[in-house]
Amino acid sequence: MPSIEPNRSRRSAASHTAILDAAVELVAEVGYARLSIEAIATRAGVGKQTIYRWWPSKGAVLLDAFLRKNTGDSENSPGLPDTGDLDADLKTVMRASIEELHDPAFEKPLRALTVAVLTDDALAEEYLRRFEAPTREVKKQRLRTAQESGQLPDDLDLDAALDAIFSPLTQRWLFRTGPLTADYADRMVEVALDGIRRTDSAISR
Amino acid sequence: MPSIEPNRSRRSAASHTAILDAAVELVAEVGYARLSIEAIATRAGVGKQTIYRWWPSKGAVLLDAFLRKNTGDSENSPGLPDTGDLDADLKTVMRASIEELHDPAFEKPLRALTVAVLTDDALAEEYLRRFEAPTREVKKQRLRTAQESGQLPDDLDLDAALDAIFSPLTQRWLFRTGPLTADYADRMVEVALDGIRRTDSAISR
Repeated sequence: MPSIEPNRSRRSAASHTAILDAAVELVAEVGYARLSIEAIATRAGVGKQTIYRWWPSKGAVLLDAFLRKNTGDSENSPGLPDTGDLDADLKTVMRASIEELHDPAFEKPLRALTVAVLTDDALAEEYLRRFEAPTREVKKQRLRTAQESGQLPDDLDLDAALDAIFSPLTQRWLFRTGPLTADYADRMVEVALDGIRRTDSAISR
Repeated sequence: MPSIEPNRSRRSAASHTAILDAAVELVAEVGYARLSIEAIATRAGVGKQTIYRWWPSKGAVLLDAFLRKNTGDSENSPGLPDTGDLDADLKTVMRASIEELHDPAFEKPLRALTVAVLTDDALAEEYLRRFEAPTREVKKQRLRTAQESGQLPDDLDLDAALDAIFSPLTQRWLFRTGPLTADYADRMVEVALDGIRRTDSAISR
């Protein structure tokens, strides 16, 4: 029966896509707390058991939905921009992140996924392995290029450097402690590169 | 009936305390997702209606429980340590935060409150007003002292400075991207003060 498997596999792929689409749409509409597997199944036109066969939780569905668009795959990623000017390239990246965060269709599912990750240890482990670690590697690659051209110290702690550059924006977004503006993106890149003791000289550079 | 009101008010205060205690204990045991007003009421020995009379949600109960111990009240706060050495004082504060985060009785309720804040706009507003803003003011006061003694530029953006100093630790804690160690605390203070371009000179200073 050679024709059955391809059909089944096509149906499977279509259900898979429908489930991820439904999860992203629904979570933007009702938020994470009110998102249910049942509602995802109804919207996707599949049975609940189909979802549970592939995913252990609604958070796991959201992670796959997110990874579909943001593979975080360092081998296939285009990488960070590299014009040779580290300051400018980091500002480009931060400004692009801010634009994405202003789009509710992106922001709401990402916030929901974040909440799931903060409360589910198994999902957190998967998130770190499948998204955070490869994304970090892509960013580190840009810092290494800057090291090679003498713009950053050779023995810089790259993890500490990435934390310094990117944490403030994530933090301000999550806790809504202030507006997410291009100015803020620029300022935080300057502060991360030159430190708060020397921020002025950084700004006027 | 002058004796009735004092008794009622004493009973009220006792119930209030019992509810906050129960919420903190329970959330450390079962996590935020499985925390319910019903379970808090049972543990506190009060009716559900008593809780709903005072708080709109389990997140609001957690905020009050947290504020009870960490008032974030700039007028009554002891403030940040001030030995005259900004680097050392910030490291002291960051190391103390890390110690607290290693205590599950503190960490679990704080993580639960954070999740609640990230998903509940009304609670987020209250959290910013009652905890984040006064805490920020206490920290800014320490930076102003450093400005007065010439250790920081006069026109430093204090909010950007606080984001740079404190966000990496919060981030690493929330997403579990690495170990929370005293070394990390020291490193991130040095990076925030002197920037990743100059981290080496900062370390060897």
